[in-house]
Amino acid sequence: MKISFIITGEEIISGFRQDKNFSYASKILYEYGFSVHTQFVGDRKEDFMFALECAEKFSDIIVCSGGLGSTSDDLTRFVAAEYFGVELQENPEAIEHIRKKIYERSGRLEIPEPLRLQATFPKGAEPIFNEKGSAPGFKIERQGKSFFFLPGVPTEFQDMFSKYVITHIEKSYPHAKKKNVKVFKIFGITETYAEKEIESIGIPKNVKVSYFPSFPELTIRIYGDEIEDFSEKVKEKLREHIYSESDSETFNQVVGEILKRENLTISTAESLTGGELANMLTDIPGSSLYFRGSQVVYHPEAKLKLGVKRETIEKFGTVSEQCAKELSEGVREYFGSDIGISTTGVAGPDSIEGKPAGLFYIGFSTKNSTEAFEFRFNVGRKNVKILCSYLAMKILKDKIKDTSKLKYD
Amino acid sequence: MKISFIITGEEIISGFRQDKNFSYASKILYEYGFSVHTQFVGDRKEDFMFALECAEKFSDIIVCSGGLGSTSDDLTRFVAAEYFGVELQENPEAIEHIRKKIYERSGRLEIPEPLRLQATFPKGAEPIFNEKGSAPGFKIERQGKSFFFLPGVPTEFQDMFSKYVITHIEKSYPHAKKKNVKVFKIFGITETYAEKEIESIGIPKNVKVSYFPSFPELTIRIYGDEIEDFSEKVKEKLREHIYSESDSETFNQVVGEILKRENLTISTAESLTGGELANMLTDIPGSSLYFRGSQVVYHPEAKLKLGVKRETIEKFGTVSEQCAKELSEGVREYFGSDIGISTTGVAGPDSIEGKPAGLFYIGFSTKNSTEAFEFRFNVGRKNVKILCSYLAMKILKDKIKDTSKLKYD
Repeated sequence: MKISFIITGEEIISGFRQDKNFSYASKILYEYGFSVHTQFVGDRKEDFMFALECAEKFSDIIVCSGGLGSTSDDLTRFVAAEYFGVELQENPEAIEHIRKKIYERSGRLEIPEPLRLQATFPKGAEPIFNEKGSAPGFKIERQGKSFFFLPGVPTEFQDMFSKYVITHIEKSYPHAKKKNVKVFKIFGITETYAEKEIESIGIPKNVKVSYFPSFPELTIRIYGDEIEDFSEKVKEKLREHIYSESDSETFNQVVGEILKRENLTISTAESLTGGELANMLTDIPGSSLYFRGSQVVYHPEAKLKLGVKRETIEKFGTVSEQCAKELSEGVREYFGSDIGISTTGVAGPDSIEGKPAGLFYIGFSTKNSTEAFEFRFNVGRKNVKILCSYLAMKILKDKIKDTSKLKYD
Repeated sequence: MKISFIITGEEIISGFRQDKNFSYASKILYEYGFSVHTQFVGDRKEDFMFALECAEKFSDIIVCSGGLGSTSDDLTRFVAAEYFGVELQENPEAIEHIRKKIYERSGRLEIPEPLRLQATFPKGAEPIFNEKGSAPGFKIERQGKSFFFLPGVPTEFQDMFSKYVITHIEKSYPHAKKKNVKVFKIFGITETYAEKEIESIGIPKNVKVSYFPSFPELTIRIYGDEIEDFSEKVKEKLREHIYSESDSETFNQVVGEILKRENLTISTAESLTGGELANMLTDIPGSSLYFRGSQVVYHPEAKLKLGVKRETIEKFGTVSEQCAKELSEGVREYFGSDIGISTTGVAGPDSIEGKPAGLFYIGFSTKNSTEAFEFRFNVGRKNVKILCSYLAMKILKDKIKDTSKLKYD
């Protein structure tokens, strides 16, 4: 089973944007065991024609992304018509689809000229409707091979790929069953450490373990026919670092779910993270159920105002365990939440108060007790903000687990 | 002038890691005006052979990345030997190079078996030394075409690509001098709008304009031999939307520089953006010079505490012009900054207080006056947070420009 992708677009071939469509589709296809061949070409007709030739030679399914809009560098429909030696013609079904969309959006009935072009396909092509955007795609069959032409906008491509291409694959290759796969999403250990731990268990024959680090997380994927026992052992070994067994679940989501379940509210006082932590927490729909608010206390005066004692700053500095504690207490009281979390540290690149870039403290306060934790990771300004936010969420997660209902202690 | 890349590796073809080598090289090549064709293939011999065939047909220069290590899935040297129909043999020069490296590192003289394999190339290949890692690459010439085989580790690939491939290009194509390029970084208009405006100027022959949207920004790159007059006209036309003419400058940096120059301090009250705005502002080293702090006021109580009147919320709701104004005033006073900015709106997916997802207000307050601006962009939860943060910075930038020194009004 072979599949080819052709990703067109000057912005990708010139290196100014990373492809998102191939990387989305390939993750899905990998589990079917397809042999995948992918080409990137720019907005040049002859390059695109060449890529189609290569792809047709290699595969039975060819998926093209991009170039279906209505500006001058959108060449896909013209290239396809030439490649298959047919004329372009307006597709009445596609015209009606576009008309309906415009009417729903604006109440107007006429279709502007550029949008008419989007309903124009090589003769014999079958339209593929686009529910997330305007430009439809199309499908062409030739000598048992299927060519899909889809728009390049990632949300549109991804939706249409899952609906039309995957359906086509499942119909054409009924035995292309997905391999078994087990996913562990991890925060807190490196790829090297995880690999050593897993190899010490002994990886069975016909089982494959892949590591996909994405700062500051690690995803482990275990593939094979019989993976259950082995996966259980891996889970046992890395239990405390695994936060999810689902590809689609994120760390902030998991933390949010625990807070919701335990009916706890939080607030954050952020110096080092500068809003990153609040931002991660509020990326989750419904976060207003548990997230009360945050104070980004960049200036020392702002810290004092939140309840940090002047003596604390004079004696220990703003980057200190003491300051972290007082911030987490202060913000908990300010917002009236069950839990207060604080971050203070040196983001870098320069040191502050004689303290090195990468040193930071996280404070954690409930009405019963207040603690602070010291860390040192000199990983660059942006990454230290991200890492510290993750560590704050990790502390939150572990603490809630430890003490069950902090609220009623 | 045509160049082909072949990127091999199961982790890339499976979509679990993004390629960094092609995207690095392509940025450099784009300005030479090369036509670029790229293929991604997995660790399968026949797929790699097929890719070499396609590449040889398309280009005079073929660059392969990956598969030169010494584990079982490193196939490149074997594939190359088969493709060119020659045997593998140890290269004495490469052996000496590796021996020297090991000696420098460990004082040992013998070469472990796996490293000997790394010095084994198809007969007739010329070694390419690797200063950043262990595995050397190699170069093969056939019928005027040059094949470069380089390691996949990005730091190694990038170093060797710049040193050997670029040198080769400059020697082989002495007239392939870099094109002139002019960059405009833009926020506030769409690609379609920008293209229409630029086309109305009339694009001279031999000048190419490329558009690189990256939500919510747009970068325009103008290439050609004589681009100065035309670039001036583009600049004139889009002036108010251009925030930088340098690839490396970011919007938050530009806003920060203006604040520093004008000696103004700001603080933010964030409901909709949930910390995103503060996070963007504090991503810049030295932001503590102008950024005083932020309050993420998610809960209505937190808004009241910052000075929003209970009647305002009862009468207009938290998503309202009035609430935005009172928040911006409140936070300015709380942190004692020159400027207060606020965001309040419906991130979605659900509507709030009968107001639709995507509706939001930005408040802007100085000691002289307070205003609010209404927007409506239903672009999804995460994007609406980002877009609103950008708009807040844009308002900040324009307002400072308008009134010069707000501080001394």
